[in-house]
Amino acid sequence: MSQPRLDVLAIGNAIVDVIAQADDAFLAEQGLDKGSMTLIDAGQAQRLYQAMAAGREVSGGSAANTAAGVAALGGRAGFIGQVADDQLGEVFSHDIRATGVEFDTPVIDNGVPTARCLVLVTSDAQRTMGTFLGAAQHLPAGALDPKQIEDAAILYLEGYLWDPETPRAAMEQAIGIARAAGRKVAFTLSDSFCISRHREGFLALIDGGYIDILFANEAEIRELAGEEDLDAAIAAVEGKVPVLVVTRSEKGAIGLAGGTRAEVAAEPVEKVVDTTGAGDLFAAGFLTGHAQGRGLEESLRMGAIAAAEVISHYGARPEADLKALVASRLG
Amino acid sequence: MSQPRLDVLAIGNAIVDVIAQADDAFLAEQGLDKGSMTLIDAGQAQRLYQAMAAGREVSGGSAANTAAGVAALGGRAGFIGQVADDQLGEVFSHDIRATGVEFDTPVIDNGVPTARCLVLVTSDAQRTMGTFLGAAQHLPAGALDPKQIEDAAILYLEGYLWDPETPRAAMEQAIGIARAAGRKVAFTLSDSFCISRHREGFLALIDGGYIDILFANEAEIRELAGEEDLDAAIAAVEGKVPVLVVTRSEKGAIGLAGGTRAEVAAEPVEKVVDTTGAGDLFAAGFLTGHAQGRGLEESLRMGAIAAAEVISHYGARPEADLKALVASRLG
Repeated sequence: MSQPRLDVLAIGNAIVDVIAQADDAFLAEQGLDKGSMTLIDAGQAQRLYQAMAAGREVSGGSAANTAAGVAALGGRAGFIGQVADDQLGEVFSHDIRATGVEFDTPVIDNGVPTARCLVLVTSDAQRTMGTFLGAAQHLPAGALDPKQIEDAAILYLEGYLWDPETPRAAMEQAIGIARAAGRKVAFTLSDSFCISRHREGFLALIDGGYIDILFANEAEIRELAGEEDLDAAIAAVEGKVPVLVVTRSEKGAIGLAGGTRAEVAAEPVEKVVDTTGAGDLFAAGFLTGHAQGRGLEESLRMGAIAAAEVISHYGARPEADLKALVASRLG
Repeated sequence: MSQPRLDVLAIGNAIVDVIAQADDAFLAEQGLDKGSMTLIDAGQAQRLYQAMAAGREVSGGSAANTAAGVAALGGRAGFIGQVADDQLGEVFSHDIRATGVEFDTPVIDNGVPTARCLVLVTSDAQRTMGTFLGAAQHLPAGALDPKQIEDAAILYLEGYLWDPETPRAAMEQAIGIARAAGRKVAFTLSDSFCISRHREGFLALIDGGYIDILFANEAEIRELAGEEDLDAAIAAVEGKVPVLVVTRSEKGAIGLAGGTRAEVAAEPVEKVVDTTGAGDLFAAGFLTGHAQGRGLEESLRMGAIAAAEVISHYGARPEADLKALVASRLG
C-alpha cells in the first residue's frame, strides 16, 4: 500500500445552495419539515423559489462542503460529483477548486441543470432544505477514476447520494475500489428522513463491515438503530464500526473507537447565524485530524472548531482560515 | 399630471455580483485599481474568475440595488434592465421581484449571458469590481414601457449604463418621456473612471437641465467639476441641478437644494464588512425620503441609515428590515 496522495476523497451531490431567510409560517405554508431535507422536482423547485425571498447563491453539497473544509484545514482533498454544463455548474466547479480541492468529474450536457438546494434559514438559525437534484443524480460510475480512489487515505460518502440510483451504484463501486486498495471508508448518515428511505441499504453497508468511520447526529443514530434512547442507539451501533462519531449540536460530540470513548463540548460561537453545513464541517475537522494521526478526542475537537466557524455565518463552506483557527486553539 | 403609481423607476445594468475576499497583492497582480469599477470582456472575466477565491453570488447592479432599497424602505419601486435567458438571469429576476420591485423587462436570448460583476472585497471592506456587461449592454429602447415611466415620480439612472451605447440610447429616450410627463430625473455619476469616460455626455445632461437630482461621491464631484478642492467642486455644480447630494463615506453626506445646505454624519456601524452598495443604498434612502415629502436633512438621514445597513454585511442589497430601521431612528 503506497503513501496516499490525498487525505480525503469525497463523493456527493454537487449542489449550489440558494440561501434565503424565511419564517416558520412560510415553512408551514410550503409543507416543509423544519430542519430536514426534502427532495423536490423541477416544478416544485420553481414554485418554492418563486415564493421565497431574495437569496444568495453559495456552493454547497454535503460531502463537497466536507472536502472544502478538509482543504481549508490544510488537508489534501478531492471531490467527485456531477454538475451540468451551465452557469451554476461553473459556480460549483470554480468554488470547490478555488478552495484547493481536486475536482475533475467531467460535466454532463444532457439538458438537466446543475443541482440546487433551496435553503430556508429561520431566525433560530435552523435550516430547512428543498433539494432539486438535477445533474447530481446522473453521476455515472464511469466518472470514477480508480487511481484517484486508490490514492486517497479515506473515501468519504454522503447518505444523501443514496437517493438517486445512478450515483448510488457509483458509490458502491468506489467502496469496492477503496477496500481493495486497503483504504478506509467513511460515511455520513446525512438526514433522518434519508435513513428512513434507505435504512436497509445503510444497514447492509454497516453490518457488512464496509464502513470504517460512521458519522451521525442524535436523530440519525436513533433512526438507524430504531432506539429512542441515545445511549441505547449508540450501544446498538458502536460495535459495528471501528469509529463512530455522534454529533450533538450545542451539546458537542461523542466519539467511540475500539472501546475508547471521548466526548467534547461544542466550541463557543458568538452568534449562531445559519447551521447549514455544521455536520459537514464537523466531519471535515474530524477526518483531517484522523488523517493527521491525531487521537480521538483531538480529532473531535477539530470537528467542533470547524463546525463552530461555519455556523457563525451564512453558507456551508468555511470563510475564516480554519488551519490557523485550529493551530491557535489546539496547536 | 396624474398621481404617480411608482415612487422610483430605476434603469441600470442588471448584474449578478460574485463576491470574494482578496488581498491587495491579488488586486495588483490582476492590474485592478482598488475601489474602482473596471469593464472587462468575457475572456478577462473568465481569467479573473479562475484566479479569484470561492465566491457568493448575490444580485447586484447599482440602480437595481437602489430600486431594491427603495422597496425595502416601503417605497414603490420599478426596475428596467436586461438579463439573458440563463440561470444568472433567473437569479437576478427572482431576487429583484422578491424584494417587491416591479421588473418586467423581457429577457433576451442571443447567446450573450447575463452580466456579472466580480467583486473583490479586501480586509479594509473596500470593494474593487471587474464587470462583464454581457446581456446588460443590450437593453434596447424598445424594452421601455412609456406608461411605466410616466407613472413614476422619479426616474433614476446610473452613470455606469452610459458605457454601452444601446442602453444609453434607451436612457436618453426615457429621460424624454419622464420630462414630457412632468416627472423628475435623478442621476448617479457612479464612478470617477466612468466620468472620465463620459464627462462630456454627463455635462451635456447636467448643463442641459435634464437632471433634477444628482448623486456623486467626493471623487466623482471633483472629477466632474475638474476641481481638486471639494468645496470648489460643489460650488461649480450646485447651481446646475435643483438637488445635489454628495456622499462622503464615513464623513457623512452633504445635500444642496435651492440655496439650502444640509449635512449629516454617517450612521454608526458596528463593523464595516463590505462597502459594496453603500452609494446605491444612500440613493435609495434619499429618494424614498424625497418621494415621501421629507425635507433635505431627513432624506439624507434616510440615505445614511440605508447605507449603514448594507455595509455591515456582504452584498449590495439590504438584509435587515430597512423600513423598521428608519422608523426606529427617524420616526
